[in-house]
Amino acid sequence: MSEDGEVHDVVAAVRAGNPRALGRLISWIENASPALPVVMKELAPDTGRAHVVGLTGAPGVGKSTTATSLVRALRARGERVGVLAVDPSSPFSGGALLGDRIRMQEHALDPDVYIRSMATRGHLGGLAVTTPQALRAFDAARFDTVILETVGVGQSELEVAETADTVLVLLAPGMGDGIQAAKAGILEIGDIFVVNKSDREGAQALIRELRTMIALAHRRPRDWKPPIVSTVAYEHRGIDDLLEAVDQFRAAQTTTGRALRRRVARARREVETIALAKLRSEFQLNGAAGLDDLAEAVSRGELDPYAAADRVVVGR
Amino acid sequence: MSEDGEVHDVVAAVRAGNPRALGRLISWIENASPALPVVMKELAPDTGRAHVVGLTGAPGVGKSTTATSLVRALRARGERVGVLAVDPSSPFSGGALLGDRIRMQEHALDPDVYIRSMATRGHLGGLAVTTPQALRAFDAARFDTVILETVGVGQSELEVAETADTVLVLLAPGMGDGIQAAKAGILEIGDIFVVNKSDREGAQALIRELRTMIALAHRRPRDWKPPIVSTVAYEHRGIDDLLEAVDQFRAAQTTTGRALRRRVARARREVETIALAKLRSEFQLNGAAGLDDLAEAVSRGELDPYAAADRVVVGR
Repeated sequence: MSEDGEVHDVVAAVRAGNPRALGRLISWIENASPALPVVMKELAPDTGRAHVVGLTGAPGVGKSTTATSLVRALRARGERVGVLAVDPSSPFSGGALLGDRIRMQEHALDPDVYIRSMATRGHLGGLAVTTPQALRAFDAARFDTVILETVGVGQSELEVAETADTVLVLLAPGMGDGIQAAKAGILEIGDIFVVNKSDREGAQALIRELRTMIALAHRRPRDWKPPIVSTVAYEHRGIDDLLEAVDQFRAAQTTTGRALRRRVARARREVETIALAKLRSEFQLNGAAGLDDLAEAVSRGELDPYAAADRVVVGR
Repeated sequence: MSEDGEVHDVVAAVRAGNPRALGRLISWIENASPALPVVMKELAPDTGRAHVVGLTGAPGVGKSTTATSLVRALRARGERVGVLAVDPSSPFSGGALLGDRIRMQEHALDPDVYIRSMATRGHLGGLAVTTPQALRAFDAARFDTVILETVGVGQSELEVAETADTVLVLLAPGMGDGIQAAKAGILEIGDIFVVNKSDREGAQALIRELRTMIALAHRRPRDWKPPIVSTVAYEHRGIDDLLEAVDQFRAAQTTTGRALRRRVARARREVETIALAKLRSEFQLNGAAGLDDLAEAVSRGELDPYAAADRVVVGR
């Protein structure tokens, strides 16, 4: 089979919702395969439908358990559900305790559920390039909802979480510093806050504290006041309330046109990141030859670094 | 006075070794002034002479005290000495305890000493752009040695430390985990290791541990085995031994031609960073107009992100 033929077969199978083909495509995304521009061109008409739910929070708050529980609730509605974990601490990424693995098995044989973790270490552009593409792949593979699990620390991680259509920020009582442990940025990106493990001591205090901090930190428009939902994901408690809050948020966002604006912003960031990666690699390919001579002239004081940079850039 | 006239006056005063003019120029560097290409062009012939001594280590090991003590020893040799602190935890950066401030006062009235901290927060390219330029400014202002103080944590911080002609890695006993606290990378960049506060309990154990770890971690050529020098910088003890080690390293590097190669590598990185910053800002200026329309088409599935990125880059 020719490579091109292979690409077209994978594209066709992804479109048909085949999970193996989707897995293959996500591997291509992880490895920045040269086939991606062709694949993405062919898949473009099939995208723009999936609803992306971001799930972020510190390690240990129960993100994967909540994801699993959300999958069950969404399946009960008849949806096709994907989970994309770009969280290196996620059990979906291989660091699972036995109990977590067993819970995930619940959906292992369901063809309308696909759970996948993604490695992005050392990738040019990192999460900012691979995540939107992988979401695009899920979308083309006819998943109605994609749950995007990210760890809520680090600037680039927060930026990725923010690209979701709906951002759920998870917290749990008894996580040491409570909210203090959550970085400042995480309070600003939440559309809905989830206090998981809410049967534990300290849950009420956490909710009170959270309410105050959301009021202080939040910069969202006034017509959406981020609700706080209590869950015990391990026992599937509160998950229906959580889905209801998601529905309300979606409806509000669609009415105000903000849902669309957020998607355009996500696409803009995606295009920008691909374009910059392209510029950088072009520059490294073409600039390398003369760069050593220029650097030597600079080190001898015969040339200044700006003039040298001009020659490199103009010489592209 | 015309702006151009002002630029030429500053350049002339920097060349004459005027500390106020140098301070002005470093502020321009911090603020990415548009005058920099002209300034650097004029200063280029005066550069390439200063010896840059990097001083890196975790907060609390005594970097600033060691810098002050080195300044005193170098002044005793008749050298003009600059200190550039890009370490946000440095007392030179404003976080000084009273005692530190008093020690620094020692050189406050000496026209052949110039101590300066530099802020780089939010700067495009960050430390990687501003530090080599500031070193260039010190160089043009006829400083014989410039001590570059950096905190030894974080990838970009280590990269900056590595640009020095001679890299001193400082450690101190009783810093919690000892060497374990020092990130792995810091052992690889040291040309000379300094165990400061060596009158404290645990200094001998630290030296032994350090010797083993250097042997394991070190990837330098065989003709230079990084020595370990014990100091008590607060009492100016061991500083002459340290300077002697620096002299030996310089002599060895010059003989083997490695000193020059390191400078060329530094210039290369500087040119590369300026060129990339240039590409990025060009791209942002020219790409912004059509980007919103392209992003909208992508979000509607009418265009794929690679094709959109192509249009942006080609349209530059």
